[in-house]
Amino acid sequence: MGEWGVIAALAGRMPAGPLTSVGIGDDAAVVGAPSGSVVAAVDLLLEGRHFRRDWSSAYDIGVKAAARSLADIAAMGAVNTALLVALAVPGELPASWPLELADGLASEAARAGAGIVGGDTARADSVLLSVTALGDLAGRRPVLRSGARPGDVIAVAGPLGRSAAGLALLSAGVAVDAAPEAVAGLIAAHRRPSPPYPAGPEAAALGATAMIDVSDGLLADLGHVADASAVALDLDSSSLVTGGPLSEAAALLGRERPDSYRTDTAGSRSPTALEWVLTGGEDHSLVATFPASTQLPSRWRVIGHVRAADGADAAGVGVTVDGAPHAGPGGWQHFR
Amino acid sequence: MGEWGVIAALAGRMPAGPLTSVGIGDDAAVVGAPSGSVVAAVDLLLEGRHFRRDWSSAYDIGVKAAARSLADIAAMGAVNTALLVALAVPGELPASWPLELADGLASEAARAGAGIVGGDTARADSVLLSVTALGDLAGRRPVLRSGARPGDVIAVAGPLGRSAAGLALLSAGVAVDAAPEAVAGLIAAHRRPSPPYPAGPEAAALGATAMIDVSDGLLADLGHVADASAVALDLDSSSLVTGGPLSEAAALLGRERPDSYRTDTAGSRSPTALEWVLTGGEDHSLVATFPASTQLPSRWRVIGHVRAADGADAAGVGVTVDGAPHAGPGGWQHFR
Repeated sequence: MGEWGVIAALAGRMPAGPLTSVGIGDDAAVVGAPSGSVVAAVDLLLEGRHFRRDWSSAYDIGVKAAARSLADIAAMGAVNTALLVALAVPGELPASWPLELADGLASEAARAGAGIVGGDTARADSVLLSVTALGDLAGRRPVLRSGARPGDVIAVAGPLGRSAAGLALLSAGVAVDAAPEAVAGLIAAHRRPSPPYPAGPEAAALGATAMIDVSDGLLADLGHVADASAVALDLDSSSLVTGGPLSEAAALLGRERPDSYRTDTAGSRSPTALEWVLTGGEDHSLVATFPASTQLPSRWRVIGHVRAADGADAAGVGVTVDGAPHAGPGGWQHFR
Repeated sequence: MGEWGVIAALAGRMPAGPLTSVGIGDDAAVVGAPSGSVVAAVDLLLEGRHFRRDWSSAYDIGVKAAARSLADIAAMGAVNTALLVALAVPGELPASWPLELADGLASEAARAGAGIVGGDTARADSVLLSVTALGDLAGRRPVLRSGARPGDVIAVAGPLGRSAAGLALLSAGVAVDAAPEAVAGLIAAHRRPSPPYPAGPEAAALGATAMIDVSDGLLADLGHVADASAVALDLDSSSLVTGGPLSEAAALLGRERPDSYRTDTAGSRSPTALEWVLTGGEDHSLVATFPASTQLPSRWRVIGHVRAADGADAAGVGVTVDGAPHAGPGGWQHFR
């Protein structure tokens, strides 16, 4: 098809969005920034590291790549406006592959209200994508990681642990077709995360004091909030949803592949749904802190509280579960 | 050093810029967009395709990667405000390598008035970079590729062919230390392009009707303008600077490696400086069209004129040199 043909075909599948005055096809795009500032983030996705082509379709990878960057904008309290996509693919891939990827990108961008306004393409030995997301704060102040205060509640919008459970099922070779429906949903969640974008601006409007998207795992990402805010964060395990599909998946894995699963993910311990909820990333749900008096809409579930850090030394800062450090894999101490 | 350590070290070397209210370290950056819109472009640079680590230092690659995206913003008539950088490097590279790259990125961003406000890092088998540039139009309308009108003059700011000549010298194995000073300057130009960023907003203020940066070669990039504007562009070869270092380099290559050079770049013909000027990319100079009555500052050199396309069919649209199609490699017909 040739480079220009591919770009034209890609551009035709990716609408530019309502705020875009110059889209794909010139040296740069021009996108509205009504607030007088722009919120911007970039994420890199590499084949074999962030996705596998035998586990995810081109469309799935497009959805995931878009979601990863779009969620960063929402986590600032901003509304998504536009994506720019740099893409390299191997020459031997069929021409339909990047087009289906474009469909996935466009679909998830549209779900967030954003257009696709620019890009660059190249050949490489494996697929790589870099997605830049732009957003607008609509006059609100950005919600940073650094504003959590003792007494605030910690609340989450969106699921936790579902993508990690889906990845564990794929890693264990569980066939989607043979899996119970609820468990198959976890694999789908891994392939196509579905972040709750409107919850970001909603949290900002409600007065959220800090916010982050769960990309590396709840403990790890809250660790960044604890660090930046110089507070301690305590999660209430009873408020973390671990039943239903997550428990079914843990039981399935413990029963079918007990040895390999134990070795892969939890040392000598059995798989637990709580592990996925605490340490699984890539659901791109939003976790925020709010003043305790905030009336939270139902999509925000309170999962813990902010406390003062013990003493002045950094050892008192961190994330605990039911008042104690979490000792499992991927816990906060892992990032020390 | 670990991922967080590398990010912190990188961030410390890359100032955020004057319009940035939230820089590296949160989910996303917040950058001023005083005009109420943002200009944005992304470019991908892959080792072995866009640069070689044995021909360019980490610092050089940082400069080149930044320049490539910054020039896209200038070519819209906008002022650069910020860069976001996604970077993957092999694990075996010394920790100093990404830090020197960051120095190169920061240096070139500062030259354009931009800060570095966000990024992402990963491991990969070879170095890859994606640089997103943001800019502001300061109330001006963007200068598109589509506005050239018959009667306009074509003018260029910045050098042509220097990067291509430098690449030819490197490809032929010419040692920089042994090369005459003027010729060594071409190799330096290939390693560290130096686009004339302020010429972009200047052209917009002067009423430029179309503009593009020369990234793929003068004929190829003007071909995009001819296509988008539905006009014919004619270059005057006598106005294209081909003497001095370019002629010296052509003579050096023709003398030292006549056979390989002929085969590599120009079929059966000898290397000529004009070839580099017409088809060499990566200098990232700016080429624009202006109404013929425009009083151009001295950095803009008139190199041709815009004419009406012959007839209604696309065959009349294109770029000519002294009134005739250019038959050499990389000429316009190559992109048909």
